[in-house]
Amino acid sequence: MMGKNVGIGLLGLGVVGSAVADSLLNKADKLAEQAGGSLALKKVLVRDANKPRPISVEPKVLTSKASEVLSDPEVNIVIELIGGEHPATEYIEQAITTGKHVVTANKEVMAKHGYELLSLAKEHGINLRYEASVGSGIPLISPFQQDLAANDISAIHAILNGTTNYILTRMAHEGLDFPSALKQAQELGYAEANPANDIEGTDAAYKLAILSSLAFHSRFDPQDIYCEGISRLQTQDFRYAREFGYAIKLLAIAKRAEDSVEMRVHPVFIPQESQLAKVDGVYNAIQVESDLAGKVLFHGEGAGASRAASAILADTLTIARNICRGINSYFEPQLNQKLIIKPMADIKTRYYFRLNVADHPGVLAQISKALGDNSISISSVIQKECDPLAQAAVLVIMTHPAEEKGAQESLKQLGTLTVVNEVSNFIRIEE
Amino acid sequence: MMGKNVGIGLLGLGVVGSAVADSLLNKADKLAEQAGGSLALKKVLVRDANKPRPISVEPKVLTSKASEVLSDPEVNIVIELIGGEHPATEYIEQAITTGKHVVTANKEVMAKHGYELLSLAKEHGINLRYEASVGSGIPLISPFQQDLAANDISAIHAILNGTTNYILTRMAHEGLDFPSALKQAQELGYAEANPANDIEGTDAAYKLAILSSLAFHSRFDPQDIYCEGISRLQTQDFRYAREFGYAIKLLAIAKRAEDSVEMRVHPVFIPQESQLAKVDGVYNAIQVESDLAGKVLFHGEGAGASRAASAILADTLTIARNICRGINSYFEPQLNQKLIIKPMADIKTRYYFRLNVADHPGVLAQISKALGDNSISISSVIQKECDPLAQAAVLVIMTHPAEEKGAQESLKQLGTLTVVNEVSNFIRIEE
Repeated sequence: MMGKNVGIGLLGLGVVGSAVADSLLNKADKLAEQAGGSLALKKVLVRDANKPRPISVEPKVLTSKASEVLSDPEVNIVIELIGGEHPATEYIEQAITTGKHVVTANKEVMAKHGYELLSLAKEHGINLRYEASVGSGIPLISPFQQDLAANDISAIHAILNGTTNYILTRMAHEGLDFPSALKQAQELGYAEANPANDIEGTDAAYKLAILSSLAFHSRFDPQDIYCEGISRLQTQDFRYAREFGYAIKLLAIAKRAEDSVEMRVHPVFIPQESQLAKVDGVYNAIQVESDLAGKVLFHGEGAGASRAASAILADTLTIARNICRGINSYFEPQLNQKLIIKPMADIKTRYYFRLNVADHPGVLAQISKALGDNSISISSVIQKECDPLAQAAVLVIMTHPAEEKGAQESLKQLGTLTVVNEVSNFIRIEE
Repeated sequence: MMGKNVGIGLLGLGVVGSAVADSLLNKADKLAEQAGGSLALKKVLVRDANKPRPISVEPKVLTSKASEVLSDPEVNIVIELIGGEHPATEYIEQAITTGKHVVTANKEVMAKHGYELLSLAKEHGINLRYEASVGSGIPLISPFQQDLAANDISAIHAILNGTTNYILTRMAHEGLDFPSALKQAQELGYAEANPANDIEGTDAAYKLAILSSLAFHSRFDPQDIYCEGISRLQTQDFRYAREFGYAIKLLAIAKRAEDSVEMRVHPVFIPQESQLAKVDGVYNAIQVESDLAGKVLFHGEGAGASRAASAILADTLTIARNICRGINSYFEPQLNQKLIIKPMADIKTRYYFRLNVADHPGVLAQISKALGDNSISISSVIQKECDPLAQAAVLVIMTHPAEEKGAQESLKQLGTLTVVNEVSNFIRIEE
């Protein structure tokens, strides 16, 4: 029964790769039971095969040549964990064309080249799986491919980046400013030395492209997703958000419209009592709205080596099970819809404006006119004195729903008004 | 490409059956795309084939004889939605032995006979799927079978019954007593005329048995799960819970111990800030703790016809996809562990006691002694005057962790003390 032996080739032995290798060794019996055959680590691509390593991978399996993994006839499944677009994309292509199943955690590759790779995999009868690419250990890809398959999905609202959620949590709960919160995240290893991909929203946009493709059965170019990071947020914004009953989160949003999909990643005000507002620290949460299943939410830690290993090993087991049973079950992308991403100018939402204004009578009238001229009407305003000597005040405005193009136009106009000292911030509201 | 035709036989055309039939008709194109072949409703078992029905099922497919569904050569997949233990179990057996794949939403059958049915299915190369049996449209069975397969699961804490969660939410937020909250749930269709299965925890115990079997790879008899309902809860308990920083929920709990699993369904105090405390109304939530994935939470509506249809159709699509591709992929239960359910007397937790006592000096000393004699130590106490004329007071005690047998013994002893007028309630605490 446990006769079959499934050969694994690992590309990359960094933090996640080491966690996967560790589990392959330490959980060998459990994994063999689940797969119906044993999983054996045959080859591991590393930068330096001679570097001493803390885990007990046999030195003879280490190689610094990718071709030794990709062409090893004993390797049935290639696990790609080197990250980045190149050469990961090419390695995955090679693995597929030489008849090896592939497991990857690479969001950038799957967001940018998922369609081509899945098509290539289908052509070669290969299973290409990528559960770890979004939400790490939180089951998502497979629920989208399988459990929600009968649904028409209308919207996804998600916290897909643990680093930024950690920073926002510290800013909200402890009143830290952005640089301090980022610094602490870096010290704790939650943010990288170069945190751009996380804090600018690029990472979340890749993940949103992957989920949206599964949800809406269409290809989307992640570069077309509107993306705005969290570095402009200030302590005051969190205070005003709370006063109005909101929390501030970096959300990845996708909403089905007629022949398009609204897709965007940016900070939003969301009602304090909403499920997503309560997601704190490095946790991720993905809320999916659909016709049959209603609102379903998935919540868990979206980062960490063992979290990713959980998803990578799940994919590996699914493939290994099929190999042991001699069946070939692959996922076929149903990308028959040709949907465009809705232009950002056309989206409609509510807005929060924070302005530093002259503290005179008539100022609000000028500001409401600048907004009204662009079809934006105010739902509430609070004014706080901030500098009595300079006769300046802070004006916080919440609007009714309006089109983004109007909001952008009024931002420009507000900037030209002499009574406006500064347009301090502008944040979208998501109910 | 869309050449294959997959025949569906439906057992039961109640609320859920009608929702499934509706989707098979109204979403035919989408389902065909997802399956790679069209799904056709061939036969439907109903009580009365002549009764007029609001949905547009062709009259010729209706039958009042189960055998006409089970022996129809055009039926490839039998969807069982009649509920209850018999004759559903026998119908599923017959479907399997005559070579038909089965989708069921039947928690009672899967909790009691899942092992035998899954073994029989494996023997016949049949796929038996039951995603709708727990959490309705929330993806759970498949994540447990697949996405969490590499994990050693240590605990499940879950709200698995929407009816009771609705009642508890009304009691907590509006101060309703149990009979009024139940009545309202019945008026809204959230509770059945005979609500025993829900409010006594039996329904949740079936679901816990199903999830635990997948999580711990062992068979469990749902009849051995300790089960306590919510009817004893009173308005005061919610008030005191809040004072101590807790919410009251009916939780289904499973925890891995050495050679056993702690399994129980009963009302618990859980910290107000915990994720499960915030799950309100008819929602279900399932929190799973495991070595690799950490804490993962699934949240959604656990009831409603279209919610169930989402899961039933997902299972149907998974099977149909395989039929259309000519591959046979079934789930093989890995029940190689022989774990017993830990005796309730041996579980260790904290407790809440609410007592009506004589308002004299020395009363607390007698009560602490009754508890201390059974190795229970008090962590906090509040005393409230309740009836100055009768010189009676309410004593609310929270204890440190102690064994259930000691708690039960002290309940008996407290009942015999003359200073104790009444042991008003006793609720376990789960941190």
